[in-house]
This record gives sequence, structure tokens and C-alpha cells, in this order.
Amino acid sequence: MTTVALDAMGGDNAPAATVEGALVACGDPSLEILLVGRREELRSLLPTVPPNIRFVDAADIVTMEESAAASIRAKPNSSIMVGLDCVKRGDADAFVSFGNTGAVVAASLRQLGRIQGVDRPALSAIFRNAHGSRTLLLDVGVNVDCRPEYYVQFATMGRAYFERVLHHGNPSIGLLNVGEEQAKGNQNTLRAHELLSELEPNFIGNVEGKELIGGGADIVVTDGFTGNITIKVAEAIVAMLTSELRQSLMSRLHYKLGAWIARGAFRGLKMRLNYQRVGGAPLFGVDGAVLIGHGRADAEAVVSGIRAARDLSESGFVDGLRDAFGESRRLPASRSVLNPDADPELDAAAIPQTS
Amino acid sequence: MTTVALDAMGGDNAPAATVEGALVACGDPSLEILLVGRREELRSLLPTVPPNIRFVDAADIVTMEESAAASIRAKPNSSIMVGLDCVKRGDADAFVSFGNTGAVVAASLRQLGRIQGVDRPALSAIFRNAHGSRTLLLDVGVNVDCRPEYYVQFATMGRAYFERVLHHGNPSIGLLNVGEEQAKGNQNTLRAHELLSELEPNFIGNVEGKELIGGGADIVVTDGFTGNITIKVAEAIVAMLTSELRQSLMSRLHYKLGAWIARGAFRGLKMRLNYQRVGGAPLFGVDGAVLIGHGRADAEAVVSGIRAARDLSESGFVDGLRDAFGESRRLPASRSVLNPDADPELDAAAIPQTS
Repeated sequence: MTTVALDAMGGDNAPAATVEGALVACGDPSLEILLVGRREELRSLLPTVPPNIRFVDAADIVTMEESAAASIRAKPNSSIMVGLDCVKRGDADAFVSFGNTGAVVAASLRQLGRIQGVDRPALSAIFRNAHGSRTLLLDVGVNVDCRPEYYVQFATMGRAYFERVLHHGNPSIGLLNVGEEQAKGNQNTLRAHELLSELEPNFIGNVEGKELIGGGADIVVTDGFTGNITIKVAEAIVAMLTSELRQSLMSRLHYKLGAWIARGAFRGLKMRLNYQRVGGAPLFGVDGAVLIGHGRADAEAVVSGIRAARDLSESGFVDGLRDAFGESRRLPASRSVLNPDADPELDAAAIPQTS
Repeated sequence: MTTVALDAMGGDNAPAATVEGALVACGDPSLEILLVGRREELRSLLPTVPPNIRFVDAADIVTMEESAAASIRAKPNSSIMVGLDCVKRGDADAFVSFGNTGAVVAASLRQLGRIQGVDRPALSAIFRNAHGSRTLLLDVGVNVDCRPEYYVQFATMGRAYFERVLHHGNPSIGLLNVGEEQAKGNQNTLRAHELLSELEPNFIGNVEGKELIGGGADIVVTDGFTGNITIKVAEAIVAMLTSELRQSLMSRLHYKLGAWIARGAFRGLKMRLNYQRVGGAPLFGVDGAVLIGHGRADAEAVVSGIRAARDLSESGFVDGLRDAFGESRRLPASRSVLNPDADPELDAAAIPQTS
């Protein structure tokens, strides 16, 4: 039996979508779901309460726009903080939220802490390429300013994900850059290239943005600023193209006819294009299984998110991370510049900036 | 009569495509074209030489892969250096090349120098949005490491381009960032936001990547690292989607039939999608009209490039830049950190990193 704590109050469509999703997901008797939030409100949305759904009271709700740092201070009893506390206390194996990403990252750091050896947590996005394989991009928003050694840690975390969750050993690792040659890049990526070459056996060098969908690397590491802009531009272009195509096809009667005849082709394409986070993206580097889904999640996406959180926990991903960082690895010299007195958990800079 | 110096040896399809393009473009008698390159080779490609085409000898050819800095030192008589010298001496009004972008930027700095007040030149890309208006993104590759004050200069240069070339006064200017709120961003963009707020009257704040095609700002400024990755990801996604769509539509006989009936819709979409540099992108900030086109340019693209170079010269863009930077503007305090002894023209860091 695996127990997933669900932030029932988080997301644009919560709590209706989260409760409906939980109801579908709990059809699997090997899964227990903790609905974290305002019990009365949640209870009223359920006709009957299945045996494998339990309520955990949390009075506060963090809104989607709220500042992450402020949400922790002002709302210690938010569904996010309480849900993560369930994982911390061992009452749940994983936590999943479709709410405020920044708040979940900050609260996870507070409640679960980081895995030893990880300086900063990271978020990822998955791109699917034409050959059907996947490329993991990280970081996509937690660390807008990255030290070169973070890239090495992102690579290590990505590798653990491939090995434990995707069952894909020895993934290739690329550094997102403006050109493939070693001499290309800004000061940060030049230094990151050196460190990755020295420390990461699966490093294949710089890769350009096209390799995210070209499949040139299994894992692509980048700073959270570049990564976040990359995924938002990618999302926007896919949305623009599909909307323009639809508009074009609807502009004449015989185009409509042709589109209707070929409708199966568009349906197939639409399914392949759905390369966005399926269910959600794990939060890499915190000491517990945490999954963050899209704020616009509907009930179906909530079901995927709950299952992905269960899979994340059962995969042993967090153990894999601990093992990866526990191995005796030569640490880069520049590690010494990190201030051991700083408390990243409480540092304003540790609060992710993605919306 | 406007004279355009054409790098006849630059580009994947040169000199066949450049000569053919010149031949078409010179059908306009108000245009004179200087074909810069190996005279005998170029002459042999022309059945007869029109009166408004002249040859300018240049013995060396810079390849597409060559290092920009090395190309200047080793090949002072390249078609790029000689063509830019024509502009410098006043024999040509503008220079256009489809060759090695880095080499053209470095050679332009060497031959023409920067406009006073401009620290670093920049390249741009134009995105067209669904409403048919254009968004200019700069820098897209010259400056992989940007000081905050560069963003202000990019904004000023973009404004001059909108006013002089696009005849669009008062363009809105946004800063590419991970979120719209002022507090979002990395150290560089936070400081750039302050400077832009203080110095750029048309600054509207942070914009996300989706606004490049959403039309949320006329001009979007960013560092050359982020900008370059953004345009390459955008290009790759458009290419992937069109190829996947084609594949889907060809996979069944009745899909093919439907696609054939609706073929006009796809054609219309394809034309609208061609949001890439039309003809080429001006090199912003050097003291002369320089246009850089895509290395894969065919003869048709060469014609557009020659015409765009002519238009750039006739628009008075360079005068507009001089005016914009000549106005008494309060300079940001951090300007003083720039080392006045450094010679950016010869500095390795001044060599752009785009391929």
C-alpha cells in the first residue's frame, strides 16, 4: 500500500478537480490518498468516502499568486505545509500539488530539507522527440542564478531519475548552449563545461536548443532562467501553431471538408505533441518524493499526478538520489566558495521564481 | 542610386545563389550592386554583366565554421573585410552577407567601429504574431555575457529601428524574464529592470517568452545567450511541428486526400509562419548599414537580403542610431565600471558566439 498526500486546495480548479481526481485514482485499492485541506469543504464534494481516502485538516490556502517566502511564514497550516508534514512524519510516501510552484518548493525545503550533497533543488520538464524518446531539461525555474557546480548536481539528479524512474541506464547528458563547440557559451556555461567534463562520466558536451526535440541528449542541464524561458517559448509556439492551423482550416468550406477527412491525422499529432509534464514533474533534490503538477490541471490530470507521485515513491527515486550523492565523488574546487553558514532554506534567493 | 556591397562568397549556397540573387535584384535600375569576391569565378557565373553590377576583388573566403577572431587576422582580404571596406570608404551605402555571422560582426567592428555611446553591437530576430504585428528580439547572439547597461542600449537601438525602418513611433519595450512581476529575474535582469525603468521612457516591464508571439511588446531585450537559445528552440519547434504534421497527413490514403483538399490552408499557414528574418537582420550598433542573412539563403533570399540592405541604408537607420545615442541622456551610474582601456574590437569577448 502506497500513501499519497494530495494538496486538495491547490490549483486553478481545486478543490473540485482534486477531489474528483482522487475519487477516480482511489479505484486502485493498492493506493491510499490523504486529502489535505478544509475537511468540511472536501467532504461535501464526496458523495461517499471510499475506504482508501482519508482527510487531513489544513486551514490555510496558498493562492497561485502569493509570494513563496511569505506563504510559509504567514500560513504554516496551509494544505502545502501540512501535506509535506505527512511525508516528513512518514504518514505519506509522496506529496503531490497542483498549486503555487514556488510555495511548494519553499515548503518542501522547509519540511523535508535537501539531500546531502545537493545545494539547490531543481525542477524539470520533459520533451518528447519524433523518435518517441524523452529528453529531460533541468533546471526550469528554481535557480535563476546558477553557480557552475549546480549544473553538475542537476546532471547527477537527472541521471538518478532516468535510472530509477524511467529504467534507462547510462543516459547521455548535455549542457544547453549557443553552439556545440567547447569554446561556446557565457562565463557560467564555460566553467560548467569544465566541471561536467571532469566529474560527469556521461557528459557529451554542449547541445543546442534543437536537441531538446532532436533527441541529441537524454538529459539537458541549464540554469533556471534559461530553462524557464525555453519551456515557456516552446509552449507558446506549440499553442500558436495549433491555433493558426485550426484557424486556417476553418477559413473555407472545402478546407473544413479536407480537415474532416484527415481528422485522424490531427488527432494523432495532438497526442504526440502532448510532451508537457505528464502528471507532473518531480522536485529534484529534496529529501522526499514531491511531485508538482500544472496549475491548470483538470480531474484527469490530477489522476495522472497522483499516480505519478505513487510511481515516484515506489521507484526509489529519493534513495537513488541519496546513493548518487553519497558516492565518494571528487568535489569541484569551487565548491569551497559556497558559504556554509548560509541557510538556503530561509534565503530569499532560494525561493523559486516560476509562476 | 543606392550601392549595396554583397559578400558574394558567403553562405552555404555561394557563389551560385549570391550571383543569381544579384542578377535578379539588379533588375531595379536604382540599385547598384558590388559583387565582392573572386572576380574570375563570379564573372564566369554571369552570362553578361549588367551595367549596375560591378566586381570588387577579394581573394580570401571565410568559411562558415571558421573562428571569427582568426578569420580577421588570417584573412584581411576576405570578401567580408573587403566588402565592409567599401562601406567605410563610401563606395557602398550598405553591406550584406550570408556568410559567417561571427566573422561579419568582428569585421564590422574592425572596419566601421561602433556608434558613439554603444558598448556592444547586437543582432535581432523578428517574430510575427497572430495579429500580424512584429516583435523584435535583441540581442540574439553577439553578447553571451551582458552587463545590465547593455539592455538599455539594446532598447535604444531597437527603438531607432522601429522608428526609422518600420516607421512605427513609440514602440513598447519589454525585458524578457521568467515572470511579469518586477521582483522576478536573475541578478542581471533585476538590475537591467532598474536601469530600464529609470532611462527608457517606453519600458513596460518584464515580459514572458510567450509575448514574443503574443505581441505583448514591440521590442523585447535580452542577453545574447538567452536570446540565441530562444530563437533556436523556436525554429526547432516550428520545424518539428511542420514535419510531424506532414508525416501524420501522409500516413494514410484518406488523410492524404483530406490534406490535398485543404492544401490552400497549409500554404497560407506556411507563409504566415515564415516569421524568420526576412532578407536578414541588421547588425545594430556599428557605424554603417550592415545586414546579415541566413547562411542557408537561396537566390530568392539573397534578393530579399540585397533589397533589405538597400532599405536599411535609405531609411537612415544609422543616422537614427547616432541621433538616439547623441541625445543628452543621463548615463547609468554603473557605466563607470566599464573599462575605458579595453578595446572591445580586439577583445576575444567581443567575438559573437552564434553559428
